Amino acid sequence: MNPEQLKTRIKKIRSAMSLQKIDALTVTSPVNVTYLTAFSGDDSWAIITPRQVYLITDSRYTIQAQKESFGPKLCRIIQRKGPLTQAAQKILSRSKSIETVGVENTITIALFDRLKKLLTPAVKKTNNLVESVRTYKDPGEIAAIRIAAKIAQAALENITDNIKPDLTENQLAALLDLQIRWLGSYPSFETIVAFGPNAARPHHRPGSRKLKKNDTILIDFGATHKGYRSDLTRCFAVGKVSRFYAKVYKALWHAQQTAIEAVLPGADPNSVDLAAKNVLKKYNLPLYGHGTGHGLGLQVHEAPIVSGGAPKKSTLEPGQVITIEPGVYLPGKFGIRIEDDILITKTGAKVLSKKTSTEKVTVLTF
Amino acid sequence: MNPEQLKTRIKKIRSAMSLQKIDALTVTSPVNVTYLTAFSGDDSWAIITPRQVYLITDSRYTIQAQKESFGPKLCRIIQRKGPLTQAAQKILSRSKSIETVGVENTITIALFDRLKKLLTPAVKKTNNLVESVRTYKDPGEIAAIRIAAKIAQAALENITDNIKPDLTENQLAALLDLQIRWLGSYPSFETIVAFGPNAARPHHRPGSRKLKKNDTILIDFGATHKGYRSDLTRCFAVGKVSRFYAKVYKALWHAQQTAIEAVLPGADPNSVDLAAKNVLKKYNLPLYGHGTGHGLGLQVHEAPIVSGGAPKKSTLEPGQVITIEPGVYLPGKFGIRIEDDILITKTGAKVLSKKTSTEKVTVLTF
Repeated sequence: MNPEQLKTRIKKIRSAMSLQKIDALTVTSPVNVTYLTAFSGDDSWAIITPRQVYLITDSRYTIQAQKESFGPKLCRIIQRKGPLTQAAQKILSRSKSIETVGVENTITIALFDRLKKLLTPAVKKTNNLVESVRTYKDPGEIAAIRIAAKIAQAALENITDNIKPDLTENQLAALLDLQIRWLGSYPSFETIVAFGPNAARPHHRPGSRKLKKNDTILIDFGATHKGYRSDLTRCFAVGKVSRFYAKVYKALWHAQQTAIEAVLPGADPNSVDLAAKNVLKKYNLPLYGHGTGHGLGLQVHEAPIVSGGAPKKSTLEPGQVITIEPGVYLPGKFGIRIEDDILITKTGAKVLSKKTSTEKVTVLTF
Repeated sequence: MNPEQLKTRIKKIRSAMSLQKIDALTVTSPVNVTYLTAFSGDDSWAIITPRQVYLITDSRYTIQAQKESFGPKLCRIIQRKGPLTQAAQKILSRSKSIETVGVENTITIALFDRLKKLLTPAVKKTNNLVESVRTYKDPGEIAAIRIAAKIAQAALENITDNIKPDLTENQLAALLDLQIRWLGSYPSFETIVAFGPNAARPHHRPGSRKLKKNDTILIDFGATHKGYRSDLTRCFAVGKVSRFYAKVYKALWHAQQTAIEAVLPGADPNSVDLAAKNVLKKYNLPLYGHGTGHGLGLQVHEAPIVSGGAPKKSTLEPGQVITIEPGVYLPGKFGIRIEDDILITKTGAKVLSKKTSTEKVTVLTF
């Protein structure tokens, strides 16, 4: 992030605030605080007023905040001694022109009650105010997601030789996480590793199931870079690949490619969902119950929704980064999901993760 | 957990509900759902009515829920197709005797608004209802925390030989996490590893700082067992130990032991805090800004508060499990914290983690 990008973000937030008739905004969600101040620590709030951005933090984080933010013109750091609510109250009572303060509707009802009691201005709930600005990524954000994807893929390549029979799902997940950390990054979320029929459950948690000599693997994983996340799924056959698995893999790969081709600026997210599912139908394969994709950025799941459940009349827009991840789940047999990270451009989709280059399943041998 | 323990929990919850004049309770916090149903998956709610415990889950989790819960008499599993709110509405509209339903005040204001709109009974906020029951651990819970501590300590022992100069904080943290996972467990929280002066910041995030030939290390870590967490901090000198570091370590160890001795049933948490701090004062060492301890269980931080900030007239009670973790932080030099997990019994404190056996700092050599 550079100061100009930050200024643009704040400007967009202030426009949204004025549309919603809010004079100030209390930002409590940690990723939103990072987005509007560049500060990456915890336990801190941002307050956006018409003239100033405040970052309320404490002595543990003051030095970090000074390093990460871009000076007092863009972000004034307030080192609190008492509770966050008290510091917010002090800032918001300074100016009489602040009559209404917005709060994010993701705060707890306990905090909402405290703020209503404490703050002088009227407290108004807001819905996705910062999130709807965050959905459009600037070049710095896109570069960070691209690097996060690169790290994840490098980590997976580095451990491939260690994938041997008798390794458990939990151990393979731990090895991959270690590699991601070794490369100076963090796992983007709790890595999913599922062997054989376990992969038929899309949300399987890695357990003590051991890899067999002939087996199948699903790995859903990601890395972070400067707070931005990647989210990828790769599947392998181990030892020998059955004709059926190879056939399903190929069909799913085509479904994913077709969905990626349907990612166009102005497209209905539902049409992307249907594009993938129509291919699976053609192959007589069962349809997955999860979304075809989701937005990706500072959070692993953020706007936009890319599924049949997307709001009516919503469209995909240039600058959004999404995953495309159709799957085929065959209980008792196996599960396959292929997931890549996609930037929506003015002309179509750009795959930020290294492209799954082939319709042929990769077979690991020893 | 066994069915009898679960029955006892539900009974306590129903008593608390009747005191607060609530006919039913909607439990949305995942650990509270686990606590009251034994189900360990995500995206599920529990509803406690005077006659029944319902678990609302979906097809991803139905089999797991059937395995983990103790049959329909103790927990009736509802497989939802629509949103959680809708399924809750259906259950709560069945009985006319349910006039008031409690919700946890940790839910978001967006969810609270939706529930108020949707539910037939009046919706009432509750504060720490399940949490205040959870603070008293049964033998199964205590055993699980003890095992979680054992796993964490075994993992640390297993990697001690790998601690070598040039290893980064992030790499050491990753090695420790790998070991914890290798032992079939998960890290209890994001492992903190801090070298040299970095440890003077109690909430340091492991970074690229490399271990030097003569250095100091702080590791704050834990493992999980059946959802229960341990939380330990161990400090080492590397190569040679300075006389000053050894002296501070010894003083802090005495401070921790003194605090543990002050852990008595009926004790004011503030007195435990003071016990540790008085020892540090005697040695002219600076006082730490964080709490002396915190409750521990399904969450790494839960009731009770063990610090000067504890509510007035609150007392420590038999069955509670807490950490005792005083620290000394010397900016630019080093930081030391010693943390163990303690069960409060009818007669005093019982250390659940393997006891820090000596006032002498451990020195790692190559």
